[in-house]
Amino acid sequence: MSRTPRRILVVGGLAAGPSAASKAARVDPEAEVVLFEQGPHISYGICEIPYHIAGDVPGQDLVAYTPAQLKQAKRVEARVLHLVEEIHPRERSIRVRDTTNDKTYTERYDKLIIATGSRPRSLGLAGEDASNVFHVKTLEGGFKIKAFVDTARPSRAVIVGAGYIGIEMADALRTRGIEVTMLDQFDLPMSGLEIRTREEVLRVLMANGVRFVGGSPPVRFVIEQGSVRRVETANGIYDTDLVILAVGVEPETRLAQRAGIRTGALGGIITNPQQQTSALDIYAAGDCCEVKNLVSHKSMYLPLATIASKQGWVAGENAAGGHTRFVGAIGAIAVRAFKTEVAQVGLGSAEAARARFDVAMETITGSSRASIMPGSKKLTVTLIADRRSGRLLGAGLFGEEGAVLRANTLAVSIQHGLTVHEMQQWDLAYSPPFTPLWDPILIAANALEKKMFKR
Amino acid sequence: MSRTPRRILVVGGLAAGPSAASKAARVDPEAEVVLFEQGPHISYGICEIPYHIAGDVPGQDLVAYTPAQLKQAKRVEARVLHLVEEIHPRERSIRVRDTTNDKTYTERYDKLIIATGSRPRSLGLAGEDASNVFHVKTLEGGFKIKAFVDTARPSRAVIVGAGYIGIEMADALRTRGIEVTMLDQFDLPMSGLEIRTREEVLRVLMANGVRFVGGSPPVRFVIEQGSVRRVETANGIYDTDLVILAVGVEPETRLAQRAGIRTGALGGIITNPQQQTSALDIYAAGDCCEVKNLVSHKSMYLPLATIASKQGWVAGENAAGGHTRFVGAIGAIAVRAFKTEVAQVGLGSAEAARARFDVAMETITGSSRASIMPGSKKLTVTLIADRRSGRLLGAGLFGEEGAVLRANTLAVSIQHGLTVHEMQQWDLAYSPPFTPLWDPILIAANALEKKMFKR
Repeated sequence: MSRTPRRILVVGGLAAGPSAASKAARVDPEAEVVLFEQGPHISYGICEIPYHIAGDVPGQDLVAYTPAQLKQAKRVEARVLHLVEEIHPRERSIRVRDTTNDKTYTERYDKLIIATGSRPRSLGLAGEDASNVFHVKTLEGGFKIKAFVDTARPSRAVIVGAGYIGIEMADALRTRGIEVTMLDQFDLPMSGLEIRTREEVLRVLMANGVRFVGGSPPVRFVIEQGSVRRVETANGIYDTDLVILAVGVEPETRLAQRAGIRTGALGGIITNPQQQTSALDIYAAGDCCEVKNLVSHKSMYLPLATIASKQGWVAGENAAGGHTRFVGAIGAIAVRAFKTEVAQVGLGSAEAARARFDVAMETITGSSRASIMPGSKKLTVTLIADRRSGRLLGAGLFGEEGAVLRANTLAVSIQHGLTVHEMQQWDLAYSPPFTPLWDPILIAANALEKKMFKR
Repeated sequence: MSRTPRRILVVGGLAAGPSAASKAARVDPEAEVVLFEQGPHISYGICEIPYHIAGDVPGQDLVAYTPAQLKQAKRVEARVLHLVEEIHPRERSIRVRDTTNDKTYTERYDKLIIATGSRPRSLGLAGEDASNVFHVKTLEGGFKIKAFVDTARPSRAVIVGAGYIGIEMADALRTRGIEVTMLDQFDLPMSGLEIRTREEVLRVLMANGVRFVGGSPPVRFVIEQGSVRRVETANGIYDTDLVILAVGVEPETRLAQRAGIRTGALGGIITNPQQQTSALDIYAAGDCCEVKNLVSHKSMYLPLATIASKQGWVAGENAAGGHTRFVGAIGAIAVRAFKTEVAQVGLGSAEAARARFDVAMETITGSSRASIMPGSKKLTVTLIADRRSGRLLGAGLFGEEGAVLRANTLAVSIQHGLTVHEMQQWDLAYSPPFTPLWDPILIAANALEKKMFKR
């Protein structure tokens, strides 16, 4: 008696979807694994798009796998331009629309993995769909911006939203010689990061010719001949040839919600550590999900490719009959603002206070290499700890060298609940071209320990 | 009744000594702290000397504190050109020779800290004291090499010993346009590191015009007019204008041993975690000590400035009435070989096997940034783990970018006994200019886990 192969269907083709599908096909070599993607491309990174627009990365390099390559390398069938319209959990089937011919059909599954990702937040203003207004959210969108910059040769751009994508876009557009105005609802860029870091990012933006206008969300787009020509705010009116909307994303859960799958207070799908949803045989992974914060033990919404790809693996392995868990995330963000590396890992000080930790915090500025070495750069480290337990809760770093990789050392410390006291004993490798004798993270730990004791 | 201030004497002025003295003076603001150094300089790093010889760092930058600055900034009196000849533990006194006038005198102490460091190993060959033969061991020695290169303009050099100082010197001398031959007793440079790493270092040396001759220790120096002109080995004879001896160091414990202080099988002073020696009120710190390896729990001899400065702090704090511990070290080494970063942290595979771990090991090559980003470099990571506990024991990394700082993330994992399984859940910051989506250390952990499971 031959066993019917397991059918594993995956909805969504960006980060978590291909990760889940590939893992499932590897774990169960007999399974039929089919992935559905509504857009024309699969398996690409949003994070690389600004570098494509800047001209640093050719367009074809943005795609890790075409459908043919995914089939060949991973034994996953990817159907692009296929929109999944309905999930029927009781029938264990989905309704799919082939948008190339507008026909729908039904596919049966044994296990379903939802990886529908996120969608850009809307400002709710007329004109968001104008021909020179863009989101940095899909590969097609990225290609459109690149083509617009290449052919329409805009001389002025307004970027709405000064989060990490807004900043990467500011960098990219300045590289292309475009005047950039950034509008943000807050007084400083990068809301959520430490004030100290945000002030530095503002300094970097201004030093690189970006006009940052804080506390000034757009209130009206002035449209001429289908294009936004002026952006009005409470504090001024900005002429523009190009508008980038980078005001964040929200989980795309409409499909899941229609199927009765449980979502949380932050709008994302709720899963257990096995990435199972509230519906039998349905898993979810990536930007459509909420994530457990390993430090605060609260649910958070953090749509990052690192988390998506790990959750994808876990969902894929479990859907294919394996047994594995995604433990959660600490929140780890890195961005390059022109020449400056900015990183934040774990909880910010405000977030830590909200989570009822007894927050202690210290900032030091050290150097990226032995300070006497040519090429050494200033590096600022802020550490955030809990006075009661002594545990490191979070860290923010910036500087022109070595901030992000050092943040990752601190990330490990945060993830495993190490204390600031323990950090002082860290035996780290030292060599003048790479680190000072006392690495800035050790100097910061020593300074914070001193401060915590003094209280 | 006024209390007599505590007298804390420190023997040795390079790394551990000034660290200990400064800490002691801070912890006990009443204490009289006096440091004795036989040479003319204090408070400098050996590690920076090759970069001075290369021309990257001016000589005056090598000294962190002059005696006057140490007095001013740290309230420590430093007596240079003062040789401590005897310790009398029962009398709690030392005999000091002022070498500027060859007079001796006695100083009483309440607490004594021995930081006599290390001395270069000798080859035992005639001619080691010739005028063109140098060690990289003291600042004076470093200045002499620089002056020799600047004025005598040697065109050929022989470096004996291909450890990290030998390699840094090869780099420095090549930068100065000198032909370099390296002689080593082993077939590959950097004994103690993984074979894979050593092969890469050999490749890098050759690619940068260094002639490496393995298995060929010098057997004779041929001397003409007080200078070595040829170095003879079993495998060839090498003409030279300059000889650098970099065959390692041994603990300088003669003073301690004469005072009956206990030393270990590796020749270093034995201390407890408070850095106390076997003699009452006598502490020791730095290159004259053996160190507990936190992974193997064995004693090791690892003369590194990172360990010396931490031990110095601990000795200084405890001598001044504080209570603190130095827990030990994992062994963390970094070196720049021309453009290549080389790092090893924790146990090597051979060392791990000797320590009776059930060694599993995997090597992967990833990229330092997202591989599609300009400037991304290959990065090779070897992880060494114990199959029984799953713990990461050691790691070796090399590549032209991001090897050393990633090694430090792994160092933390090794120091705290984290498992390869736990590493796979690490939430690390990602951004294309700094890391791939799956950082090479995560790829390596995944690969090693797979291998460990398959057995």
